[in-house]
Amino acid sequence: MDKNSYIGVFDSGIGGLTVAKEIMENLPNENIVYFGDTAHVPYGSRSKRQITQYVLSDVKFLSRFEIKAVVIACNTADSVAREAVEEAYPQLPVFGVVAPASRMAAEKSKNGRIGVIATKATVASKAYDRAIAAIAPEAVVLSKACPLLVPLVENGRFQPGDPVTQMVIREYLEPLVQDGIDTLILGCTHYPLLMDIIRECYPDLQLISSSEAAADTLRKSLEKDDMLSDNEGGQHRFFVSDDAAGVEDVARLFMRRELNSSIEQVTVE
Amino acid sequence: MDKNSYIGVFDSGIGGLTVAKEIMENLPNENIVYFGDTAHVPYGSRSKRQITQYVLSDVKFLSRFEIKAVVIACNTADSVAREAVEEAYPQLPVFGVVAPASRMAAEKSKNGRIGVIATKATVASKAYDRAIAAIAPEAVVLSKACPLLVPLVENGRFQPGDPVTQMVIREYLEPLVQDGIDTLILGCTHYPLLMDIIRECYPDLQLISSSEAAADTLRKSLEKDDMLSDNEGGQHRFFVSDDAAGVEDVARLFMRRELNSSIEQVTVE
Repeated sequence: MDKNSYIGVFDSGIGGLTVAKEIMENLPNENIVYFGDTAHVPYGSRSKRQITQYVLSDVKFLSRFEIKAVVIACNTADSVAREAVEEAYPQLPVFGVVAPASRMAAEKSKNGRIGVIATKATVASKAYDRAIAAIAPEAVVLSKACPLLVPLVENGRFQPGDPVTQMVIREYLEPLVQDGIDTLILGCTHYPLLMDIIRECYPDLQLISSSEAAADTLRKSLEKDDMLSDNEGGQHRFFVSDDAAGVEDVARLFMRRELNSSIEQVTVE
Repeated sequence: MDKNSYIGVFDSGIGGLTVAKEIMENLPNENIVYFGDTAHVPYGSRSKRQITQYVLSDVKFLSRFEIKAVVIACNTADSVAREAVEEAYPQLPVFGVVAPASRMAAEKSKNGRIGVIATKATVASKAYDRAIAAIAPEAVVLSKACPLLVPLVENGRFQPGDPVTQMVIREYLEPLVQDGIDTLILGCTHYPLLMDIIRECYPDLQLISSSEAAADTLRKSLEKDDMLSDNEGGQHRFFVSDDAAGVEDVARLFMRRELNSSIEQVTVE
């Protein structure tokens, strides 16, 4: 494997660009190929069988490129189908979002009471509970599926002061806050965009972005294995399985900047 | 074609059961086969190309049965891909939801100002504008894409008094009401469940359920063509492409009663 090969990043849709963005900022010399499975988004409410099938086809697409690592940028996919990827691609280093965010939360929590907000499938998988228990067995994990947050974010409703989003956030988070969490994992790629509005509602909570944690873990691992690219500046390519109207606008929203390359539409099985 | 053949009904997911329910109540002797494409739900935010591909595969699945008519129970599919179905199956009577709801609204509106709420894809297709213009050229159509309503309904947030749903409904509908609509088409299969809460917010609006209108049109057409079943009581079969946890609960929600048959999972391309 060549250190200048691509890092493959995939997600059920566009949300994983929050992970890609962190990788680009942390590792500006890396070549990155991003695939968003917008023909099948969202994964979070589907069955394990179906999610696994979609995830394997996502990785198959990325493996058309020469890739030195794959990043599962979707919390649902990482929670539900990571083992299937590792089994199908035993030679490929697989990175995710759940373990990095769990580690960061366990380090930062002072009282050992950690909240997790995520999709239904992620919460049902108990992947965060297992990952945190493996690092900090004494920690208490309080999880909450928040199915309305993805549609709110996708419709741009993440500005501080948005009354609908504030009401929904308070409804989801109040029980966890009452139960004494001091740290909250944003366990879905869409949620980093909600940081400001969550802070507005709960200024004392320590927020952990799974996207930021994932990029941090990837960087450390590539450094350790001497697999950092020695390019000057990286190439970025973006692919989606359905090019619905406005996909570039949504991408800009998640990247919080212009893309440096256009988004290409590809057909996957 | 046999009058005791099945009526095939399909939708992007479970929402089309609001149409199936109206058909069952209007036409209790009909055999009905329902297909919900839950592996690809929702259609409303996808591209025309992608929606058309999914819709053709839905009808292909239904055509495994002997069917005397197909009902496109999804407003998005009917708006975007109806012509593709008619082209691919020229022998098959195709019924939809857009034309029946448009006719009913044009008949009931007193001031000719008709509101339409629907998914992004349905609104972008202008299918309701065209259908209403064909029946009542002088009518004014005011459309509004309401992308947060489907997730709210799917999460059971349609009870009168729900503060989040009330706030979202007011935000979407207030401009249409200010513009003087007296009639509102609920142009998405999920929206009939919102009738009570919309009435709570806007008691003077005349609400047109596309699901109810579709069943009414189907009944009249089968009567006219002497194609009503002469069975005593009909058989109902339910299929989905992904059997995510809780699919039967969601189905019960949309049917507002128990299903008289279990839901089977099938794989479609």
